[in-house]
Amino acid sequence: MATLSTRLTKVLGLRHPVVSAPMAFAAGGALAAAVSRAGGLGLIGGGYGDASWLEEQFEAAAGARVGVGFITWSLRKSPSMLTDVLAHRPAAVMLSFGDPRPFVDEIRAAGARVICQCQDMDHVMDAVDVGADVVVAQGSEAGGHGALRGTLTFVPEVADHLAAHAPDTLLLAAGGIADGRGLAAALALGADGVLVGTRLWASREALVHDGHHRAILETDGDGTLRTAVADIARQIPWPRGFSARIRRNAFTDRWHGREAELERQVAVEGPRYRQAFTAGDPENTGVWFGEAAGLIDSIEPAARIVERMADEAAARLAGLGVEPNVTI
Amino acid sequence: MATLSTRLTKVLGLRHPVVSAPMAFAAGGALAAAVSRAGGLGLIGGGYGDASWLEEQFEAAAGARVGVGFITWSLRKSPSMLTDVLAHRPAAVMLSFGDPRPFVDEIRAAGARVICQCQDMDHVMDAVDVGADVVVAQGSEAGGHGALRGTLTFVPEVADHLAAHAPDTLLLAAGGIADGRGLAAALALGADGVLVGTRLWASREALVHDGHHRAILETDGDGTLRTAVADIARQIPWPRGFSARIRRNAFTDRWHGREAELERQVAVEGPRYRQAFTAGDPENTGVWFGEAAGLIDSIEPAARIVERMADEAAARLAGLGVEPNVTI
Repeated sequence: MATLSTRLTKVLGLRHPVVSAPMAFAAGGALAAAVSRAGGLGLIGGGYGDASWLEEQFEAAAGARVGVGFITWSLRKSPSMLTDVLAHRPAAVMLSFGDPRPFVDEIRAAGARVICQCQDMDHVMDAVDVGADVVVAQGSEAGGHGALRGTLTFVPEVADHLAAHAPDTLLLAAGGIADGRGLAAALALGADGVLVGTRLWASREALVHDGHHRAILETDGDGTLRTAVADIARQIPWPRGFSARIRRNAFTDRWHGREAELERQVAVEGPRYRQAFTAGDPENTGVWFGEAAGLIDSIEPAARIVERMADEAAARLAGLGVEPNVTI
Repeated sequence: MATLSTRLTKVLGLRHPVVSAPMAFAAGGALAAAVSRAGGLGLIGGGYGDASWLEEQFEAAAGARVGVGFITWSLRKSPSMLTDVLAHRPAAVMLSFGDPRPFVDEIRAAGARVICQCQDMDHVMDAVDVGADVVVAQGSEAGGHGALRGTLTFVPEVADHLAAHAPDTLLLAAGGIADGRGLAAALALGADGVLVGTRLWASREALVHDGHHRAILETDGDGTLRTAVADIARQIPWPRGFSARIRRNAFTDRWHGREAELERQVAVEGPRYRQAFTAGDPENTGVWFGEAAGLIDSIEPAARIVERMADEAAARLAGLGVEPNVTI
């Protein structure tokens, strides 16, 4: 096994510079614990305010050193969830999609690291302003919610900004990173590690229906899109500027571009969406993965995914490592 | 100076694995020649069918070993341009945005390499089908025309496809690559080299108005968008599925999302767009650069850009190179 030592592994005491994304519904305690036990850091998905589900997931983590991630605008509606979660002494709390200011002091007082996920440079400035320990630069390739910047340009631009304004802040790359090549590329771009969603969504421990797992194996990287239609059908009021990358399927073919009509028919379409989701139907609901689908051809244990990613990245970087020398 | 030897540098006889994008209007003979003389491969932008402009640019290249790139759907309207250009014995001809089949035999018969730029997996299958020598995997971060895949996921997915179906075909990454970090990341992702647009648009040799050069220095990576409004104003009938990344400015604020209205007013707005473009107005016309704007803070000679990119990438990969070893 190879070692990939970065500022992230040193500061957070990890064996691999890999953090799992706190995917709503899919990232439960079993996944987070498996990632942490494999040497990364697992984050439980805080989701949309279901406190009892979160309690169950911390139980499922069974004492592993995990963290948790929240949808910040949603957390504002039920801030006591943060207080409840901090009682479990999470290693870190990630805030994404909203102003982190109301929550940072409480997180820090509980001894947890503050991770701010960012989708544009304004978010990065907010994260620096609150003294985030870790900034995640999330590109549009990511599955689920995000925005429009590409990972390949956003990560080095954020690295430059942090180097100038907050040099001790760690940087994770997110969006489209699914194997050792992606991890190696992220490090080359200036990140200290990666946040991995889609590849760990396609793990045995993820809380994902078999029917949706089968769908990702049949989908290439062209088979997703960014859209608002899943949130409209679910009646979840996401703020402007964010969209969700999901599988292109019968549901998105029918409604993407016809958002106003979907809103009018939501009394029928909402329950239909939720029923199909629960049933693992790959066509008539949101199937929540990103462009990395084209790099995934098996559902595997999370530990194997994390370890192979680190091994492949180390081998790849060792193989590419060139000695500077004089040429004529 | 460091060396970065890849399959691309060996097969094409280059010192650096860097090819310049054939940007319409901006990539003339001076830029292409400067890139080739610096050890990369420069491509003149074939644009939209102005044969006399192309003749002038081959003259400006002054005998340097350069190539040329065409907008394939546009070339179909004036195929004699290809015949004229091949008389200059270009090292390579790049085809992008359309079916390459009608042109490949003529290019190959003239002894030039065939480069196919691709924006999705269907394009890649077409490129493999025609036996392209080089495939460019272009991500959405790119300035100018392109589509929606992110560079970070598209490059490794194309690398896997080529490894399985056309292992001798070379792979270039395009879209958002502006410095040694981007080149190093592209190699980590499995590319043999990179195609560079925006960073070389911001070079002294590019045919770009000073006013537009000043605009890129003031724009960060959030300051662009993909839109159809420039093509509508110019009345250039781009096929569905492609859009252009340009600077977010007064022109795009006014018209993006109001495309039908712009079409109705094109008799007034078209000449206004073209006049502002010629005048170097940064606000009332398309300013053609990509997300890499956030990584660029100077207008420099192309040779310096290419050489620094290669040096930085080599140093970065040497620095990241880890020796696999046993850990407990």
